[in-house]
Amino acid sequence: MKNIYIVGVGLIGGSFALELKNIFNDYNIIGIDISTQNLKIAKQKNIIDSHAEINDITNAFMIIIAVPVKSIIKILPKILEFISTETLVIDFGSTKLNICKNLQTHKRRSNFLAAHPIAGNEFSGPDAAAKGLFTNKTMIICEKNKTNKKLVDLAINIFKEMKMNISFMDPESHDKHIAYVSHLSHISSFMLGKTVIDEEKNEKNIFDMAGSGFESTVRLAKSSPKMWTDILEDNKINIKEALDDYIYNLNNIRDLINDNKFDELELELKKINYIKNILNGINL
Amino acid sequence: MKNIYIVGVGLIGGSFALELKNIFNDYNIIGIDISTQNLKIAKQKNIIDSHAEINDITNAFMIIIAVPVKSIIKILPKILEFISTETLVIDFGSTKLNICKNLQTHKRRSNFLAAHPIAGNEFSGPDAAAKGLFTNKTMIICEKNKTNKKLVDLAINIFKEMKMNISFMDPESHDKHIAYVSHLSHISSFMLGKTVIDEEKNEKNIFDMAGSGFESTVRLAKSSPKMWTDILEDNKINIKEALDDYIYNLNNIRDLINDNKFDELELELKKINYIKNILNGINL
Repeated sequence: MKNIYIVGVGLIGGSFALELKNIFNDYNIIGIDISTQNLKIAKQKNIIDSHAEINDITNAFMIIIAVPVKSIIKILPKILEFISTETLVIDFGSTKLNICKNLQTHKRRSNFLAAHPIAGNEFSGPDAAAKGLFTNKTMIICEKNKTNKKLVDLAINIFKEMKMNISFMDPESHDKHIAYVSHLSHISSFMLGKTVIDEEKNEKNIFDMAGSGFESTVRLAKSSPKMWTDILEDNKINIKEALDDYIYNLNNIRDLINDNKFDELELELKKINYIKNILNGINL
Repeated sequence: MKNIYIVGVGLIGGSFALELKNIFNDYNIIGIDISTQNLKIAKQKNIIDSHAEINDITNAFMIIIAVPVKSIIKILPKILEFISTETLVIDFGSTKLNICKNLQTHKRRSNFLAAHPIAGNEFSGPDAAAKGLFTNKTMIICEKNKTNKKLVDLAINIFKEMKMNISFMDPESHDKHIAYVSHLSHISSFMLGKTVIDEEKNEKNIFDMAGSGFESTVRLAKSSPKMWTDILEDNKINIKEALDDYIYNLNNIRDLINDNKFDELELELKKINYIKNILNGINL
């Protein structure tokens, strides 16, 4: 009987395991996690059949790695030592460049597929894992040509079975774009939370007014600090650039308000309204 | 037959009119709006029974004013000239201090109730109006004691009938708190939208990655430019303070990233996670 290993049985790893169970119902789904509590919950929720340690990996059909980025970089080369030429190893890290760079010359590079499911949310851990998390979401795949074609096809078939949209990107572009579109959103949200917590000593005021846009904008500030510190460290260069642009724009709007240039400000807001069209996908 | 006037038949005015129809089903609901298109849609959607102009106001039981803040300040004193001592006039402006100040010595001050329903969203116009918008939302009332007690009771009964929670606040506090909790969220969202649009020339990248936190964080950047320019102008002093705090925090996190102080950064993010508790209302 073949084994599927899930390294990191959190929101992403756990939800992916639940989908794999449907597709490969006669395979063993084995969880690996540094938290025994997470493994216990994953077992209780029937996300995994059993658990193991990295050194135990044997007869692996597929290994999914869904842990914070720094841990991926550390354990991936090691995990690739435990596999056969037939094994598919996929990582779901939120950044891709350093992960790919680190494996450039690994003898099992062609068994590895670098992927990023755009499916996370502010929750974490196996408690948050659920079926359907990946439905209609995008899976970004990097350096497809460095992976064995048969294994790429296997992976893509699995993602499509989960009703995911597939997008290809080189790791440099991925990390740059994701810094602007995702990482900056998280920083802006965390800092919004901080600014409001610091100012509002009376929590009832926050609670009463949270419906006025705050609740949704601050949602990402509930995200995992460990996971996000790893991302900010790993993607430091791109994030600094995105953050500098953001702070520049905030200083600009501050000046428009300060200088009573409200006609100019309104024109600016009108231009930004264009985001509606992009998100509706009208021009795609 | 008594008349209820809705000045501004947009998202808030229109949705409120739909609820009033239920409560006062034998009253005329009359719309007033500078947009004839809005009046037409409101009539088609059965939000209003007919329409009129401010100079036509007669036999008014209640007048709801739900237009952008600068327009409220301009028309409120005039509207108060058209009413009897029994008429209840409520404004739903997103700021409260200048609106209240401007009416301090008005002979009909006691007919007026300053209120702010925390119920808006990124949509606007009568097309977006819907029943249920106010259910379980907070209505903030300012300077209650300056309004005739009978009329305050009438208003509160109506809000409660709509299942709203009532909160009282002085106008200065309202404007300061709302600058941090709501207005800052909107600015951060608009500027996030601008930063990403400016950087990402290929809209497909935004679209593919929007699920990674961007879509919800940028939601407010779809909001009405006219309404928000009015708010930013009217609440300029408080907003500048909130914006300065926010930019200060963003510069701080930028420095932590730049100086590789990732342990400190993780501690900071952990503290901000406390926002979960506040939004869950655990401590209330």
